[in-house]
Amino acid sequence: MTELTQPAPAVGTAARRHLPDAPFLVAARGGVPARVPVWFMRQAGRSLPEYRALRANTSMLAACFDPELVREITLQPVRRHGVDAAILFSDIVVPLVAAGVDLDIVPGTGPVVASPVRTTAGVAGLPVLDAEQVEPVAEAVRLLTAALGETPLIGFAGAPFTLASYLVEGGPSRNHERTKALMYADPATWHTLLDRLADVALTFLRAQIDAGVDAVQLFDSWAGALSLKDYREFVLPHSAKVLGGLADAGVPRTHFGVGTAALLGAMREAGADVVGVDWRTPLDEAVRRVGDDVVVQGNLDPAALFAGDDVVRREVARIVDEGRAARGHVFNLGHGVLPETDPAVLTRVVELVHGLTPGR
Amino acid sequence: MTELTQPAPAVGTAARRHLPDAPFLVAARGGVPARVPVWFMRQAGRSLPEYRALRANTSMLAACFDPELVREITLQPVRRHGVDAAILFSDIVVPLVAAGVDLDIVPGTGPVVASPVRTTAGVAGLPVLDAEQVEPVAEAVRLLTAALGETPLIGFAGAPFTLASYLVEGGPSRNHERTKALMYADPATWHTLLDRLADVALTFLRAQIDAGVDAVQLFDSWAGALSLKDYREFVLPHSAKVLGGLADAGVPRTHFGVGTAALLGAMREAGADVVGVDWRTPLDEAVRRVGDDVVVQGNLDPAALFAGDDVVRREVARIVDEGRAARGHVFNLGHGVLPETDPAVLTRVVELVHGLTPGR
Repeated sequence: MTELTQPAPAVGTAARRHLPDAPFLVAARGGVPARVPVWFMRQAGRSLPEYRALRANTSMLAACFDPELVREITLQPVRRHGVDAAILFSDIVVPLVAAGVDLDIVPGTGPVVASPVRTTAGVAGLPVLDAEQVEPVAEAVRLLTAALGETPLIGFAGAPFTLASYLVEGGPSRNHERTKALMYADPATWHTLLDRLADVALTFLRAQIDAGVDAVQLFDSWAGALSLKDYREFVLPHSAKVLGGLADAGVPRTHFGVGTAALLGAMREAGADVVGVDWRTPLDEAVRRVGDDVVVQGNLDPAALFAGDDVVRREVARIVDEGRAARGHVFNLGHGVLPETDPAVLTRVVELVHGLTPGR
Repeated sequence: MTELTQPAPAVGTAARRHLPDAPFLVAARGGVPARVPVWFMRQAGRSLPEYRALRANTSMLAACFDPELVREITLQPVRRHGVDAAILFSDIVVPLVAAGVDLDIVPGTGPVVASPVRTTAGVAGLPVLDAEQVEPVAEAVRLLTAALGETPLIGFAGAPFTLASYLVEGGPSRNHERTKALMYADPATWHTLLDRLADVALTFLRAQIDAGVDAVQLFDSWAGALSLKDYREFVLPHSAKVLGGLADAGVPRTHFGVGTAALLGAMREAGADVVGVDWRTPLDEAVRRVGDDVVVQGNLDPAALFAGDDVVRREVARIVDEGRAARGHVFNLGHGVLPETDPAVLTRVVELVHGLTPGR
């Protein structure tokens, strides 16, 4: 972690920028933007050579707590691709680490938790996050809002279920068996765990909002591992605590997970202004499931970016067309940018989306 | 690979057993069985200590080509749990290996293909499977039908899409990006590849049927990675070639994949008598999607087996109840048995299912 380069203002004092014409914010609020906005989940990091150069001697977690690095990595894809929104370079485990959970991000593996949380005592021992502990992230937000001009900045957090899966399994999991075992076998402990993680996510997002982010996204990456019934019983109330807790913050809230075709309506009910959709569910089908007053985001298969320009053009046109069924459409991938993606293809997607939906 | 222990009869000469009352076969054919039949995907191998003891000095692939070992491993869960069907111990890559594809199953990783197939020339160079090449599997089937008494034996194969993913990616893949890139960018080569893999699966299943299996299951484990539109265009015709090619064989055909809520109707159209359902889609919901004349199988979350007896009892009762919406119900997990599953819990599930649906 590097020293802060300037004195940090107190939390909550940053004024949010006024960006009335930013296409991403207009679309996310259900208005009519000058063009369909486009950004990419995981646009910051991963596929960019300038990112890999910057990160060469810095671990993932150290980078996430270094405001200058976060600023630069977050700006890289905005400069390169001309996307309509920046998303903060961070990781969903950052607030857990900040709160004091012993956890590392191991290259090639992902988050590894030293002492997995699987018991009532383990849940009781989870630290509470104080906003001061994510001050480096807030500082990065302030640096970014000063640097971004008219481009909105999206903050984010991991949703309680996805955070719980990392904590209970001790790392990434294909089947989430220990997580589900706790959820089914000991609902009281489960709900306590998710309530605490909702507080963590809420504190983390509030800190970002107080520092000046223009929108937030709640990632429930693994929620698609659940049936709708289990999602409603064991997860929705806690995600609703997070999203509902930001209802008065004045920033649009996006809610996203993978494999969530059956959950889209419930994920919206949790308090989403924008519903994120993976590559399996076409946007018009998502609208049929959720209602035509919804704003949708997503659907371009990250794998399609490996298939050549003809395919990319066809898929972009299809998604722009299907997105017209919704009240609002934010163009995005159906999941994060894959590490081996050619950055030039991402730039091309931005050009294509903007070309299909020219300014009025 | 060990020597065959007895001379192998010619392919196609084994008479299929006549098992008119076997609950699994009665249910799979849409009749009214004496009780709801139950078996478990991956019941053979994995979680059983007697399996690990048998396999201690034998690689996975060597075991799959050793008729005596296949016989014993296939019988172990039948003896231990009292399931209503045996499923052949094998692997979906076995017919590829038998045909001459340079491929190994690496412990902890899965199948690893020496030369991934990503070009028109690579597809043209794929070997054709001759039934003689899977004679050790046929021999195992003959040994099993002689040993199983009244318990039906299910044969299986991997579906063209799932086999293609292994061949194109070179191993297990989370995102299937190279597979989808080939599919989108070069549909002609893609369809040639899947047609050849349909022939491989068909030859493998016919060899098993000729040797005496009583039913077959086609595993399209990764089909859930696709949208319905892409599944219909790029996959369904080839799975239909496999299942349709067995229409006159007189054995019920089950078709299963994970994350296939949106695909269930199309997977049935491909030629399934029984539609396999993962843990995300309740059986009554599957029936609403596919039609109430369908026979369904699956839905118990393999992770629920880690949650204690109360949860197991509740889930078994729920699934037996929801299964009544279908024309027929084969009780099963919504995915394969997880390696750390306590075998006693599987035995308990069999007792519970049979207790809830006593003989008439």
